[in-house]
Amino acid sequence: MNIYQESIELHRKHKGKIKIDSKIALKNKYDLSLAYTPGVAGVSEEIYKNNDEVYNLTIKANTVAVISDGSAVLGLGNIGPLSAIPVMEGKALLFKRFANIDAFPICLNTQDPEKIIEITYMIAPIFGGINLEDIAAPKCFIIEERLKKILDIPVFHDDQHGTAIVVYAALINALKLVNKKIHEVKIVILGAGAAGIAITKLLLREGAKNIRILDRNGIIYPGRKENMNEIKEEIARTINPEGEKGELKDALKGADVFIGVSQANLFPPEYIRLMNKDPIIFAMANPIPEIMPEEAKKEGVKIIGTGRSDYPNQINNLLAFPGVFRGAFTVRAKEINDEMKVAAAKAIASLVEEPQEDYLIPSPLDERVVPAVSFSVAKAAIETKVAKIFKDDNKIIEDIKQALGGE
Amino acid sequence: MNIYQESIELHRKHKGKIKIDSKIALKNKYDLSLAYTPGVAGVSEEIYKNNDEVYNLTIKANTVAVISDGSAVLGLGNIGPLSAIPVMEGKALLFKRFANIDAFPICLNTQDPEKIIEITYMIAPIFGGINLEDIAAPKCFIIEERLKKILDIPVFHDDQHGTAIVVYAALINALKLVNKKIHEVKIVILGAGAAGIAITKLLLREGAKNIRILDRNGIIYPGRKENMNEIKEEIARTINPEGEKGELKDALKGADVFIGVSQANLFPPEYIRLMNKDPIIFAMANPIPEIMPEEAKKEGVKIIGTGRSDYPNQINNLLAFPGVFRGAFTVRAKEINDEMKVAAAKAIASLVEEPQEDYLIPSPLDERVVPAVSFSVAKAAIETKVAKIFKDDNKIIEDIKQALGGE
Repeated sequence: MNIYQESIELHRKHKGKIKIDSKIALKNKYDLSLAYTPGVAGVSEEIYKNNDEVYNLTIKANTVAVISDGSAVLGLGNIGPLSAIPVMEGKALLFKRFANIDAFPICLNTQDPEKIIEITYMIAPIFGGINLEDIAAPKCFIIEERLKKILDIPVFHDDQHGTAIVVYAALINALKLVNKKIHEVKIVILGAGAAGIAITKLLLREGAKNIRILDRNGIIYPGRKENMNEIKEEIARTINPEGEKGELKDALKGADVFIGVSQANLFPPEYIRLMNKDPIIFAMANPIPEIMPEEAKKEGVKIIGTGRSDYPNQINNLLAFPGVFRGAFTVRAKEINDEMKVAAAKAIASLVEEPQEDYLIPSPLDERVVPAVSFSVAKAAIETKVAKIFKDDNKIIEDIKQALGGE
Repeated sequence: MNIYQESIELHRKHKGKIKIDSKIALKNKYDLSLAYTPGVAGVSEEIYKNNDEVYNLTIKANTVAVISDGSAVLGLGNIGPLSAIPVMEGKALLFKRFANIDAFPICLNTQDPEKIIEITYMIAPIFGGINLEDIAAPKCFIIEERLKKILDIPVFHDDQHGTAIVVYAALINALKLVNKKIHEVKIVILGAGAAGIAITKLLLREGAKNIRILDRNGIIYPGRKENMNEIKEEIARTINPEGEKGELKDALKGADVFIGVSQANLFPPEYIRLMNKDPIIFAMANPIPEIMPEEAKKEGVKIIGTGRSDYPNQINNLLAFPGVFRGAFTVRAKEINDEMKVAAAKAIASLVEEPQEDYLIPSPLDERVVPAVSFSVAKAAIETKVAKIFKDDNKIIEDIKQALGGE
């Protein structure tokens, strides 16, 4: 039985992966009268008088919507909302297991960005945060941007920002290892979807000066005709104003870093020779990387990360999103801004005190990760004034510990 | 501390009443690879190949959306979606406690019926059923009717049908006690909102021939000008074609049954004298009935039910909706039709073998209720061919038992 069949059987046995549970017992009429009518009317009135009380008297403060339209699910593509359910349930499971956050999957029967925006806004009252998931580019950018403007709770597209945070964390330590600086290196990013664009933006913000981003039509340059969109055009004008054209092999000349968020086997091993000394390769196509670690190593590459758990340096969003949301929730941040993302990346990187070729970032199962990320994100939220609740460091640590510990 | 304050403190302590939990453990990388990537891709593909598998491989088969726009919450009225959350969470808690169904509350940031229909349709993929809750009349009728047409899962407006089922259950036993037949009695219904209309329709279906329904403008008659809507007009043409006008005291002349789903103290005790011998009074206004049981008893009334747990004969929706959904889910009914509602009412009534004045219907905490209602509803779904899975009686009983017993 392969892993897919085994997974199917596991899902069939349990009929899915999450369930709703009660926080309070209902044993007698009195319990009922407090949890439901007539007592609950008092709770509703309390919130009616002071809307902010919804954070203290309901599940809102700890609840995330995992929202997808099924348009870009894993490597499977546009498989629609029903087939996306197992993935979104899985995400909810991870939120629970790693951040003790109650996440509920919502799979939408529409792929129209305007509708997705409207529906997410309309169902938001019970949620304390929105995690957009597996929504195709470029509409994912518009959806996230618009929702951030109209909602007063964090909106986070994990395929963009989760990936960008963990890539940056790994890059911090990889650069340290080869003794290069982010503003000096040439970075080539293959894949201009949600992840590629978000990585580019985050690295630019952090000082990268020389980035080329490519899609299946090659290097993206201003005014390109094929397969463009507003976001690509905007990015191209920023990073490639000279309008350099070409294929992957052209971009890789003199590059120090390759970041792949594209498809299997797109990076021929011999291209390594085009790159500078001590190349850094993050080949994150799933399940098969752009270049297999074995092949890269044959070409002398020492630092390689993938998306896979069976190789070292797994660049896994799971390092980021649980702590990002836990941190945001701890100080009730109204958004997740760039400073919070950078803080998350640095927290992840800092957990590896002495980076090694096969140990750039911690394992997602490393129990230090979520508390460290949560703390740094919460602090950054306070410092950038997007936190609605101010807490000092000790209080942040205490509250995170309590939140992660259970109820 | 009164019950409202005590309820507020309970909610504050637990920050709401429900949580998401995992059905499977995530201890190591292998667990992760089955519950999430890469294994989950196999589950998604399985559903993509055969959509029906979503019922076997995800939470859909046991999951209900509790949907409200906060427009008619308890006796509080239009308090909006945030203030409605505690009530909808409470409903989800009851679904879990009584039917072991995973219900998630969705409170909508809109009160436009077209939007409510659209959003409910759009978020339906992960849900196996829709429970509409505390949505004002008359839009609740249109919303339910339209959703039933476009969705292939049960849609149930509990304020209508839950109430109608339990009222009918109580009435079956009350009529038995006074030895009257439903087609002979005159029934007066005060309140023409969701509950009043649904009760009227169900009793008509069950043979009632003489019903008057009233709202704050008095008896509803065809062509009335004040405070009318399409549903009221339609009902009026059916039950009052002669166009009788008047107030409550006019309607009560010669009535056998009074059903109140209106407001406190609207039934002056002396009106009892207008009614026939052995009057049946169901005064369900909450928290204060149309007439207090003590007052009614002073006027010689022997059979009185209310919505309250501190008096006998509590006419509580909790007797119906858990079993209705559990029964529908057991045979994967694509809708909840009138036959299933009637089956639920008769199942509830039948649990009281010898009705007495103070014991018309079982307590909501009576453990026989949910299995009995579930069984009858499932059977009725099969008989009326809305069940997607055929099961014989033994299998129905076994599956209900298993479903109620835990995971």
